[in-house]
Amino acid sequence: MGDETAARGSIGQLDTGPLNAITDVAGVRVGHATVIEDSPIVVRSGVTVVHPLDVGYWEQNVFAGFHRYNGFGEVSGVQWLDESGVLTSPICLTSTYSLGMVRDTLFAHFLEKAGRGRSQIAVVAETNDFFLSDAPRQPLGPKHVLQAMDTATTGPVAEGNVGGGTGDVAYLFKGGIGTASKVAETRSGSFTVGVLVQSNHGQRDDLCIDGVPVGRELGAARVPYPLLGSDDPYVVMPEHLAKRAAEAQPEGSIIIVVATDAPLLPVQCRRLAQRAVAGLGRIGGIGNNGSGDFVICFSTGNRFAPEPAEPVSNVRMVPNQHFSPLFQATIEATESAILNSLLGAETMTGRNGNTAYALTASAIREVMEAYGREAPFLNG
Amino acid sequence: MGDETAARGSIGQLDTGPLNAITDVAGVRVGHATVIEDSPIVVRSGVTVVHPLDVGYWEQNVFAGFHRYNGFGEVSGVQWLDESGVLTSPICLTSTYSLGMVRDTLFAHFLEKAGRGRSQIAVVAETNDFFLSDAPRQPLGPKHVLQAMDTATTGPVAEGNVGGGTGDVAYLFKGGIGTASKVAETRSGSFTVGVLVQSNHGQRDDLCIDGVPVGRELGAARVPYPLLGSDDPYVVMPEHLAKRAAEAQPEGSIIIVVATDAPLLPVQCRRLAQRAVAGLGRIGGIGNNGSGDFVICFSTGNRFAPEPAEPVSNVRMVPNQHFSPLFQATIEATESAILNSLLGAETMTGRNGNTAYALTASAIREVMEAYGREAPFLNG
Amino acid sequence: MGDETAARGSIGQLDTGPLNAITDVAGVRVGHATVIEDSPIVVRSGVTVVHPLDVGYWEQNVFAGFHRYNGFGEVSGVQWLDESGVLTSPICLTSTYSLGMVRDTLFAHFLEKAGRGRSQIAVVAETNDFFLSDAPRQPLGPKHVLQAMDTATTGPVAEGNVGGGTGDVAYLFKGGIGTASKVAETRSGSFTVGVLVQSNHGQRDDLCIDGVPVGRELGAARVPYPLLGSDDPYVVMPEHLAKRAAEAQPEGSIIIVVATDAPLLPVQCRRLAQRAVAGLGRIGGIGNNGSGDFVICFSTGNRFAPEPAEPVSNVRMVPNQHFSPLFQATIEATESAILNSLLGAETMTGRNGNTAYALTASAIREVMEAYGREAPFLNG
Amino acid sequence: MGDETAARGSIGQLDTGPLNAITDVAGVRVGHATVIEDSPIVVRSGVTVVHPLDVGYWEQNVFAGFHRYNGFGEVSGVQWLDESGVLTSPICLTSTYSLGMVRDTLFAHFLEKAGRGRSQIAVVAETNDFFLSDAPRQPLGPKHVLQAMDTATTGPVAEGNVGGGTGDVAYLFKGGIGTASKVAETRSGSFTVGVLVQSNHGQRDDLCIDGVPVGRELGAARVPYPLLGSDDPYVVMPEHLAKRAAEAQPEGSIIIVVATDAPLLPVQCRRLAQRAVAGLGRIGGIGNNGSGDFVICFSTGNRFAPEPAEPVSNVRMVPNQHFSPLFQATIEATESAILNSLLGAETMTGRNGNTAYALTASAIREVMEAYGREAPFLNG
Repeated sequence: MGDETAARGSIGQLDTGPLNAITDVAGVRVGHATVIEDSPIVVRSGVTVVHPLDVGYWEQNVFAGFHRYNGFGEVSGVQWLDESGVLTSPICLTSTYSLGMVRDTLFAHFLEKAGRGRSQIAVVAETNDFFLSDAPRQPLGPKHVLQAMDTATTGPVAEGNVGGGTGDVAYLFKGGIGTASKVAETRSGSFTVGVLVQSNHGQRDDLCIDGVPVGRELGAARVPYPLLGSDDPYVVMPEHLAKRAAEAQPEGSIIIVVATDAPLLPVQCRRLAQRAVAGLGRIGGIGNNGSGDFVICFSTGNRFAPEPAEPVSNVRMVPNQHFSPLFQATIEATESAILNSLLGAETMTGRNGNTAYALTASAIREVMEAYGREAPFLNG
Repeated sequence: MGDETAARGSIGQLDTGPLNAITDVAGVRVGHATVIEDSPIVVRSGVTVVHPLDVGYWEQNVFAGFHRYNGFGEVSGVQWLDESGVLTSPICLTSTYSLGMVRDTLFAHFLEKAGRGRSQIAVVAETNDFFLSDAPRQPLGPKHVLQAMDTATTGPVAEGNVGGGTGDVAYLFKGGIGTASKVAETRSGSFTVGVLVQSNHGQRDDLCIDGVPVGRELGAARVPYPLLGSDDPYVVMPEHLAKRAAEAQPEGSIIIVVATDAPLLPVQCRRLAQRAVAGLGRIGGIGNNGSGDFVICFSTGNRFAPEPAEPVSNVRMVPNQHFSPLFQATIEATESAILNSLLGAETMTGRNGNTAYALTASAIREVMEAYGREAPFLNG
Repeated sequence: MGDETAARGSIGQLDTGPLNAITDVAGVRVGHATVIEDSPIVVRSGVTVVHPLDVGYWEQNVFAGFHRYNGFGEVSGVQWLDESGVLTSPICLTSTYSLGMVRDTLFAHFLEKAGRGRSQIAVVAETNDFFLSDAPRQPLGPKHVLQAMDTATTGPVAEGNVGGGTGDVAYLFKGGIGTASKVAETRSGSFTVGVLVQSNHGQRDDLCIDGVPVGRELGAARVPYPLLGSDDPYVVMPEHLAKRAAEAQPEGSIIIVVATDAPLLPVQCRRLAQRAVAGLGRIGGIGNNGSGDFVICFSTGNRFAPEPAEPVSNVRMVPNQHFSPLFQATIEATESAILNSLLGAETMTGRNGNTAYALTASAIREVMEAYGREAPFLNG
Repeated sequence: MGDETAARGSIGQLDTGPLNAITDVAGVRVGHATVIEDSPIVVRSGVTVVHPLDVGYWEQNVFAGFHRYNGFGEVSGVQWLDESGVLTSPICLTSTYSLGMVRDTLFAHFLEKAGRGRSQIAVVAETNDFFLSDAPRQPLGPKHVLQAMDTATTGPVAEGNVGGGTGDVAYLFKGGIGTASKVAETRSGSFTVGVLVQSNHGQRDDLCIDGVPVGRELGAARVPYPLLGSDDPYVVMPEHLAKRAAEAQPEGSIIIVVATDAPLLPVQCRRLAQRAVAGLGRIGGIGNNGSGDFVICFSTGNRFAPEPAEPVSNVRMVPNQHFSPLFQATIEATESAILNSLLGAETMTGRNGNTAYALTASAIREVMEAYGREAPFLNG
């Protein structure tokens, strides 16, 4: 993989934060539990946890907002998040078949940390990794949740075949976890918007990168060199593999987590969450019927104890009139994070010999060149 | 009417504010333009304006939230209110057929006050007063809007056949404008919740007052003495009047305005707005198919300039955990305001000789007595 | 308990169906797994399943709609239900701490029944039974889910301390499962609206039955004879018990399932779901801050295969103009089902010696009499 | 203008309908009233009406759904549309300052057509044409509404500076009315999705056409030849004009009307409406804070009398599983209709000498060529 592994991207006009990652929002911590096993069953799965703050979720909460683009999927905890605007748990991403276990584990964890006197809501979302993983056998357990929770750190974020995205497939390429950030210069000051996605969505033809129809050019039945051992830059995917790849995407799902240090109210977080759809649309997201496409946005700009310390709390807000750069940052960071979920992934073979091939930076560059463009958005 | 006119009510466990009116929330101002004319056409209509603050709406705004119980009606301005959580105009209540005129007049008024450099959203809601008023001929004009805007004051609020409720009919009694307030003792301190309604909804049988089926006991075809000049406490409404009365209520509408001085965020205003439905339900609101039942709740506890004065604003919030008394206050104030819209109204004859009869306090008392209850909730 | 156990109720003007139960809607099946154990841990919990049809949920689906009154709780599967209007699973009700397990079990069950080629969404809601049950230890397992699924039948429905409501407390009385039905005579014909609730909500003072403040009259510290072995009709609850009872209700939750045989579209189901709030409001529901109050309404009037058999499906709808009786039926059936969840329950002692006392029909009658009323709504 | 005027476009993979217009959906009729006057005040405004069917809206209705992308604007009638799923009026598009008048005019028109026995809801949306038109003086009147209503026809649709879009500005180019259509091949058959937009949104830099950043390449201060009489293909816009152009776009608005002959239920229309956002995102829509971006989607595949003719109606639906091509068609038709609103417009000078310059097909082609692309999507 060499240099390829290092390739990451940033699409759009705005500057990235130092890491081009959701962790550019100060305090945000990300952890992964990656489960890759071949026996007794084939597992390519895991759990990813996004902690909004650098303290325990039982100690401090933040405001958040929710948006649904397409609803064929599950995300727990959003009724309360939507009504109260408060995020009372980390955001956990996992496999479709294990969402309930992750949710129940968070409840047990909260009791341990916070005692029995308080109630809990847990935000967990999922994508379906069954193409590569024997997901229906529910191979994940509480220990994986705790591992992802406990190992979460600030700093660089592992991407691709990690955590909840270990077995994911996007645009019929290998997908998974991706992240990016953008800096929004507003009349209220400079703020960072970071995005982390778990990408498992899209048909090959849908994929557009910086406006170039990379998916269509590479073709539904082609995979990038050198994945099949040929010198030809693109080789035809054998019929039986193409069929399996199609099986991989009944219609997928994508979970988008948006973080910002701009001090926002809950309704304002909801507005940013909704903007992620335009970023998804630009890189080729249709929101297909069978997709569960959910966005959760939180702001670290206000933090407060779950049990009110004061009768009336003081909170801060960026006026709505200063929002357009935050919107643009959200759109661009979403598009970039999806790109990074592809670039960060490596080709993986899993259940039943199914293989999802990585989209390499060199393949993107070749298509871009054919379109008379450089790919300055690729930094690898 | 004598003593009857003075009768007002308060249902529930919580104490009222000093005026038992929405104006118990400091700064809230209410104005009415009442139009009662017999020629050239019969008009029983008007405009009611609720200013959230004691300054111009072009100078200071507040947070607000919206809830729809049943949607067969119009309320302008709520897309922005729902998305941003900001109320940028007074709340205007008027006749179905004149809502557009009121909305356009507010736009002209805003330009005059704020200049051309800013845009506006206007919140206007309506009920259909066609039973008593020749509403389809759109007898209202900009001068009525300005009159209601400019004469709005703090202090006691005229009820019944005034302003936008002039020609309204509720539970087949004469309805219109009603108001009430409740004091919520919360762990964040003592707050006032005030409600103002424009009631034009409900079938006779639906009406329950403090749990007693007053509407059913009085009967669909009966009206309280002495409205038809009989000594009999209840007399049968002549057939042709009963028919006309039924015509009065295709299925009606009710607009509910909730105000509080508790410092709330937009999502929190939305929660209070939703609670008004339980108050409406208790007094017999079905939310019939043909009804336009909308609730707007605003909080005067945060106020800010429409054009941000500072890069980041400071706002205050009552923690959600302290909300239940605010919910109860909203429910009780809504129930009470609807009662007051009935008690405050007087029998009125209008278009085509149609008559809507007032529900008198004495009639309520008689039913209550038959149910072994006093009516301590009636203060008249 | 004797006659008391037989007492059930129906509040409102409309007639009940033959069973006064959700199963009056033809084909609806209800099953309970009731888990009452004292060692190794104290369990008062279970699972209740409502199957919308008399065939497997993997064979036929129905339309449905969702409404949230207050969001402090969890209900899985409603993103897709809200977006598509299709209910693709039974509705499962259980304990807060076991919701995830129930959801994952439904996924496994679906795979077994439908094969691996299709995806699933599972609707599961919860109330918190921790006052009586050692819920945080998650004592329920897949076998309980399957038991409730498999034993579901048409016909009379067990109420009170059964299934998901086994350990529930409502209005500081023993709550749990309750059901009722109403017949709506509409211009489209006669339809049944059935409701099933899992009640775990409300403060004592909130409870109003048919308009009479039964909760307030019985008092926060009193429990009905003969629960504490006294001849006095009401005895004071010992201080320490009162304290425990208060602990029982951080603020509760209620899940409301509405079924109808009226052929409705998804948006129409949503309208009925919203009406349940008025019924909840009438019996004293505040929708307190810490309550998870959710309504799911489905219509058996349209049924179709999950995998479309035809290119274009034919569905039937009752015109909206004929809806008001359906609304009234929903409101009345909700109020009645909550009453039956109280009447159907028996006094229960559980975890830590905590006891929740049943509200008896005789106690209700005594209060009603003091209010000069009979209680014709009690049939026991 | 010559050939330029004829240039229209279609972006994406799917085929257009015969006219590449919303009127490719059989029965849909579009009418414009275009008001261009220079005295006594400068008017560049009008009304556009989309009739969903080839019969009067008082005779037959269709299902519809609503989606808000950003809410700083007004759209009347959507509370009922969202709740009932029924569109009971034509969709009218006009100037911000005249929306109320259009709405009230529709009420009067309905009474004339349908008689007094029925109530009405009117769907009217607006964009702010004040840069070119003296909109605040509210120059439009009922006659313009009636003209647009009465002249509506099937067949080709005039674009650009017509109807409600007469004075609009998009991406700092001249905007206005645009339309397009796409054919979706689904497992339920072949359906047409048509879109009509009234475009008044976006900053110059936002504009991307088929993935190429045309707006950024042309620059914020440049306008296409020969608009300023130069032989140079792009000339710098004089400083004072650039400033005025910036004034033109506080942040704009776009109204998107989606029509399809696919027989859809209301919730399904809402799904298509939401997909339009991805199309808007692709062509560079941010949904800026000050924008009122609304989508209304209706289906002509079910039609029924407003007053139910039968107790239970039969309606048809395309199964959700067959939807993805409809989603793609909606996205592509939206992107194309916005392009056509630009291509169809001509440079216009209005109020205060303000000028909005048209984006010509030749300018687009030059940028595309610089990006190594032809512009096969331009048919002119």
